Formats: sequence, C-alpha cells, structure tokens
Amino acid sequence: MTLERAHIDALTAILGEKGLLTQGLEAYETGARYDRGRAAAVLRPKSTAEVSAAVAYCVRHAIPLVPQSGNTGLVSGSTPDASGNEVVLSLDRLGGGMDLDLDNRSVRVDAGMRLSDLNARLEEHGLFFPIDLGADPRIGGMVATNTGGSRFLKYGDVRRNTLGLTVVLADDEGTVLDLQNHLRKDNTGVDWKQLFIGTSGAFGIVTECVLNLEPLPRQVATALLVPAGGAQVLPLLRAMEEKLGAYLSAFEGMSANAIKAAFAHVPSLRNPFQGGHVPDYVILAEISRTWASREGEQPLDSVLETALAEIWELPSAPLADALPGPPQEIWALRHSLSEGVKHLGKLIAFDLSFRRGDIMGFCDRMKAEMPAKFPGVAICDFGHIGDGGVHFNLVVAKDSPLLQDETFEGRLRDWVFTVAVGEYGGSFSAEHAIGRRNQAFYDRYTSEKRKQMAAGLKALTSPARLGSVRFG
Amino acid sequence: MTLERAHIDALTAILGEKGLLTQGLEAYETGARYDRGRAAAVLRPKSTAEVSAAVAYCVRHAIPLVPQSGNTGLVSGSTPDASGNEVVLSLDRLGGGMDLDLDNRSVRVDAGMRLSDLNARLEEHGLFFPIDLGADPRIGGMVATNTGGSRFLKYGDVRRNTLGLTVVLADDEGTVLDLQNHLRKDNTGVDWKQLFIGTSGAFGIVTECVLNLEPLPRQVATALLVPAGGAQVLPLLRAMEEKLGAYLSAFEGMSANAIKAAFAHVPSLRNPFQGGHVPDYVILAEISRTWASREGEQPLDSVLETALAEIWELPSAPLADALPGPPQEIWALRHSLSEGVKHLGKLIAFDLSFRRGDIMGFCDRMKAEMPAKFPGVAICDFGHIGDGGVHFNLVVAKDSPLLQDETFEGRLRDWVFTVAVGEYGGSFSAEHAIGRRNQAFYDRYTSEKRKQMAAGLKALTSPARLGSVRFG
Repeated sequence: MTLERAHIDALTAILGEKGLLTQGLEAYETGARYDRGRAAAVLRPKSTAEVSAAVAYCVRHAIPLVPQSGNTGLVSGSTPDASGNEVVLSLDRLGGGMDLDLDNRSVRVDAGMRLSDLNARLEEHGLFFPIDLGADPRIGGMVATNTGGSRFLKYGDVRRNTLGLTVVLADDEGTVLDLQNHLRKDNTGVDWKQLFIGTSGAFGIVTECVLNLEPLPRQVATALLVPAGGAQVLPLLRAMEEKLGAYLSAFEGMSANAIKAAFAHVPSLRNPFQGGHVPDYVILAEISRTWASREGEQPLDSVLETALAEIWELPSAPLADALPGPPQEIWALRHSLSEGVKHLGKLIAFDLSFRRGDIMGFCDRMKAEMPAKFPGVAICDFGHIGDGGVHFNLVVAKDSPLLQDETFEGRLRDWVFTVAVGEYGGSFSAEHAIGRRNQAFYDRYTSEKRKQMAAGLKALTSPARLGSVRFG
Repeated sequence: MTLERAHIDALTAILGEKGLLTQGLEAYETGARYDRGRAAAVLRPKSTAEVSAAVAYCVRHAIPLVPQSGNTGLVSGSTPDASGNEVVLSLDRLGGGMDLDLDNRSVRVDAGMRLSDLNARLEEHGLFFPIDLGADPRIGGMVATNTGGSRFLKYGDVRRNTLGLTVVLADDEGTVLDLQNHLRKDNTGVDWKQLFIGTSGAFGIVTECVLNLEPLPRQVATALLVPAGGAQVLPLLRAMEEKLGAYLSAFEGMSANAIKAAFAHVPSLRNPFQGGHVPDYVILAEISRTWASREGEQPLDSVLETALAEIWELPSAPLADALPGPPQEIWALRHSLSEGVKHLGKLIAFDLSFRRGDIMGFCDRMKAEMPAKFPGVAICDFGHIGDGGVHFNLVVAKDSPLLQDETFEGRLRDWVFTVAVGEYGGSFSAEHAIGRRNQAFYDRYTSEKRKQMAAGLKALTSPARLGSVRFG
C-alpha cells in the first residue's frame, strides 16, 4: 500500500518536502528488538502546530496514524503493523526547542529531543533529567511508556518527573491540549497529563514536555554486595535504606547466570570475586550526592564502608561479602548483562514487577519448577530490586528442540504470567508499557470495567485510531 | 429536610444502628475554617462493602451524597450545602485496618485512618508517611485533595506516595474499583488511580489506600537564613539544592509581617534576630537524614554550617545572615505564623503556587500595588518556596471600613487571581484542591475542552451526583 497522491500532496503542503517520506522507510518500520512492519508513509512535523494540522488531515481522511518517538521500545508500540496502511508520525524533527528555567529546576522540551541530547545540554548547568536507561529514547516516547530505569529508587519514573505536557488529540481538529503550567503544586481539577503518561500514545500525541530536573551527582560510591542468601536480599535493602536513605541511588540485583554470561562474552570485564567464583546472587549498590566532600566531611566511599560495616554486624547477618569498587567498573558489569545473556541463545524476555518482598520468592519458584516444566530453559534474571522490577530473562540454546515446537514460546509466556500476575499480583509490563507484543496480556489481565472506561476515555480524547494499542 | 423513614430503615439495615445518624450532625455539617451547611443524615460505613451498598442504595434513590473524610479542608469540599438535602458519607468509622509490608516499604490502610494514627503506628518500624501538614486529616481526604505540605521538596505530595487505591463509584451498583496492586513500577494501561487523586471525591469515594512509606529521619539540622534581598531567595535555594540536595527537606519562606505577627501574639516564641529586628524575608532551611552520625562522620548541624559557609563565599552573595538553631524552636516559629496572622484582623487567605522563580516577583508586585488598590490590606505571606507554593494571606483590620463594603472581598479575590493566574500562570489552588469555595475560579480558569472531558469522565466513573464540586 502507498498513500494516495492527493493525500501526499495535501500532507506535503502542510509539512513541507522534508516533512513527508514515502521511500527509505525501513528505520521507521523496524523495531529496536522485534518487528518489521510496513508504513504507507512517514510524517515528520517540526512543531506542535504541524502535528495538529497533519493529525486533523489524517483523521478527516481516516488515515490511521502510529506515533513514533525514538523507536527504542521493546513491545512493538511505535512501529506500523504489516498491513502497509498505517502512516508513521515521527517526532524525529520535533527536537530543536528547549527552554530552561534554572530557578524552577525545570525545562520545556520538544518531545523529539533525545535523552542524551537533553542531558548533554543540561550538564553545564549542573542539572540532569534523572531517568537512567540503557537505550537513548526521545522524550515523547519516554512519557508515552513512563520509563523507569536503574535509579528509580532515588528519582522515580517519568511520571514523577513530568510537570506538564502539550498533547495533540486525534480528532477532526487535531485539538492541541495545553497541559503545561510548569507548576509543582497544582490541584485545580483532573490532572489530565496523567492520562497520556504510560499509555503508548493511544489517547494523544505528546509534542512538548515540561520536566523536573535534578542536581547532578558530584560524588558516587559503589559496591558489589553478596547477600547471605536469597532470603537476605530484602533485609539487606531495608538496612541500606535505613542507614543510607538520602544517598541510596541504586540497588540492582544480578543472578549468577546473568553475571557468568557477561564474564564469558564481554572480555573487557574483570571478575572481582574471590577465585573467580560467582555467587548465586549479587547486588550492585550505589550511593551518590550532589556535592564533593567538604572540609571535615567523610568522602562517600568511606560513608559506604562505614554503613556496610554496621550492616555486617547486624544480628540478622544479611551480608556474606562486600566488594567496594570504582563505579565505572561496577556499572560495566551491570550494563553487560543483556549482551552476555544474548550470547547464550534465544532470549525470551519478561519485564515483570512485584512487591519488593516477592521478587526473590518468584525467582526461586521459577528455578524450582522450570526444569520439569520446560527443561533446557535457563533463567538469567536481573533487575531493580529497589523498586520491585525484574528483567526476567529466559534463554534457550539455539539448537534446542524446544525452538522447533511452535507452541513452546506461547506456553512458556502463559505459564510465567499465570504465576507472576495471576498468583503473585505482579505486573506483566513494569516499564515497557503496552504495544502489539503484549496486547494479548493486556486483554487477558484487564477487567471489563477498566476496558469500558478506557474506551470511554478514548472517545473523549482521541476518538480516531491512534497508535498500535487498543485499551478499550 | 430529613431523610424519609423508608430510606432511614433501608440504610440502617445496610449500615447498622451506629452507621446512620440523623441527630447531632453539627460536626459533620461544619467546615474546619468556613461554612456551616445542613445534612439530611450522616452515613458511617465500616468497610468498602458497606460503602458500596450504601452508595448503590443512594444512587438508586437519587439521594445526593457528600463524602467526608477528616473534614479538615479549607475550601468547603467535604461539608453539605445549606439545602439540607445532602447526605454526608463519613469515613470516620472506616479507619481500623492496616496491613504493613515492611519489605515493600508500603502500607494498606482504610481511608478513614488519621494521619497521626498512621504515623504513630509506623514509628516503631522506623517508617512514616512523609506528608507533613498542620492539620490532622484522614488518609482518604488527603488523597482526594492531594495534600502537599512543608516537606514536598524532599518527599513530594500524596500523588507521588500513592501506590494504589480502592474506590467506590457512584453508580447503580456502587461498583468497587480495585486499583490496589502494591507495585511501584507498573505500566499496563491507564493509571486510573490518578483520576481520584486531587479531585475532591467527585469521581468516586476512596475507601482504601496503598501508600509508600519512607524511613524516619534520625538526625535533623535547621537554620533561619536571611537572604541578601528578595532577588537572592532563588539563588540561595539553588545553592542549597546543589550543596545539600540529598539532605534538603524544607525551604520555607516567611515574610516580616507574618513573623512579627507571630512574635506579637505567641509569647512562647523567642525572637532570635539581632536586636529583635525582623528582616524583610526569612528562610527556614532544614536538612535531615535517616541515620545518626557514625564514627568519623560529621554531624548534620556541622554539615549545614560548612555548606552555609561555602554559600557565604559565593560571588553572588545570596546570604545576609544565617542563624542555626534547634529544629523544635525554629519550626515553632513557622507553625505559629497562621495563628499570629489571625490575630491581626480578618484573614483572606489564598493558596497559590507559581514557578519558583515567580514567587518573589509576584509578592513584590502585590506589595507595590496593594496600597493604591486596596489601602489598609496587609500582606502576610509565607510558603513553600522549594515547591513554588505560597500561602498568600491578606489581613484587614477588623474595624476597617473595607469590611462594610459587600463587594470588597470579591474584588480583592478577582484582582489577586487575575494577576496570579492570568498574568503569572500560577495556580489558584496549590494544595487545597477544589470545593464550593473556589468552584467559581475553577469555572473561570478551566478551558471548555477540559470541562467537557471532565463531564465525560464523570459519566464513565460516577454518573450520579457526588460531593460538592462540579468539574464538568
């Protein structure tokens, strides 16, 4: 399918020659990890006004739109389907503008700005947007998926750090909803921006964002901690929160399988464990503060050591070993886990979350039952224990007969979700939001009442089809 | 008006003898600061199930309900109107239950629990619900108004600290919407709980809440800071955030008028300023941490002094004086401001917020123009500079002829809002939400599109009349 000539002409009149692509669309049609769809065309507006005009035109002519931001998501939320009928509306030219308000510690940005660009521009002011991710998304997509990341424990998610939005609704007018007021405290009715955060663009296209900024950390200390056992992970976290609350900025869990895979396949990593023996489970703990040590003040690595020494003496004895080390080296291990795990075989990834106290129990249960249920599937979990998130990664050797069985992956996913969501009350999408890839699980685990309310909300905001998700 | 006998019998059958009051209703009819309405009856359910059954009955019989929590609000959001037709649904017997999850650092509470009761129960666990207020509301009302308070800068508002809710909708079935999942990271569709936060109970009655808890501070240091001038307040705040970010827990501004009123009318206060001379503007700064000093670690008051010494040396010279002092004494001054101001005459209070950098400019503008516009009106502002909130208090001597002029208060309010909201883009209700008292300003400052969406949302959630506010 391609777009009719009349539509191309009309949209080119709105967006200019560079604002509409009908060839060379692969990058827009291909997801970061999964998926290859087909787009009828790609629209590239440069401003909220252009988004509005383009959306109004498409809605009036029943042209289905898929908003696309950085296209770094993992659930097929930003790519077109295989029909070739959908038009991608990309934010990639909507990235130029930025108004920094130092007194308010906030910034207004066009939604197409990359996270890395934003933080590079903020650095000279000693500020940053504190969402720490492996990928480099654009801000609009971060809002649409409510990304969390590795420093959630200290800084929260995008929702917590969003002060305002401008949103274009998919209606006949391409209504521009101005939800920017730059205020931290404001309770004058429904907080409408919340509806556009984490909902994959289905209710409107985020074109501008007002974001909370945080002072950059000036001193950081890290350690690898070996809990005395799985049951000691949460007591260890609780002790760290009590003894270092104001400083604690990461508490990441890593399973032995994931660590071993990283050591095996990322040769630049140094194995810091005694005799190279990787413990069953390891915690990456980070503390940080916005100032360097002042006269008479203990440096941060020494603060960490003193606190760990106290934890070492606790009657509950949560700690078996502690290996302080330079942040760069310690984070290098954490950031190599994904790459290491991929080398083991076919990756079947889950983005789960739990009450924090349920994480280790869930993983133990899976480890106990997996060999009988799905022999040959290795569990290489890691995650954000501090906020309850788990990247529950399963790996199957590439030559495994399981991969010949067409029903295998579906059965595996069903079982994992039945236990994680059905039994533990966890989330089937902690920080990746909803896209075509997990639409079926949204459908399964969402009550009829909520679907009905979502359908109503859709009619109130963007009655036309928008994006790849159906919430109602 | 009283309730018909048949309704009394039916509701008594649902709620029991103690669950329905038709006499001695004064406490439920009277607001904390303003207002005296009349209720046809008061319903006092003990559980979500009882709320649901009572609501279903009332909706089917077109009995208008006003949910009431602690009734400590200041905008007439929780009291019945003067008609005598409305029935108050009180949460005061819905306060018994609490499920603490130490690993998850969260608690499920019945919405009728008092903030002080919750924190008293949490203290032995070294935790607290970190919303710091002058009043002692019940939790459900805190959700319905999204209270902020004096430590917003560090801990945020109720919205940020709410993990889940149970809500009863005002429909024929009294539908119970279970939005409890106890998760910190969950992006599986619309985050419906957001609609019931800060919306005064108009979309549903909050009956249970899952709240984030924080470790109790174990060490606190405070100082009164005198900025070199109004223009130095924000540079001072920014320097404090950079140099003490992880510790900074309050940055409160107090005008000379408010401080002098407190000294004049609260004799227990000590005046710490040189020669008793109160500066034009004073900042209360507090830093805190969850641990006491450890071996080799600087105590917090010394950390504060060192940071202030650095700020003292900054080229921008934001600081004119700094008076460290014991937290209890310093907070006593802050907490006496309201009482002091009330003694000066009739109080006309505004709960405003701004971009942080606009606060001082707005107050200066008002001080410059007030004498000509409204001679005899004193400005006694104080507020939460760290989050942009200002309790902009105006006081008129009780014998002022202005108070004989029926149009005076309305004209004054119109002018303040025209400047604060219309010119500065501020909020007319920073942390008190909406009630009958500020309904007119909601109507004035809310776009037609938002009202239309709110009306649609009302139909989707609680189609029956509920509470005292009309958002649509």
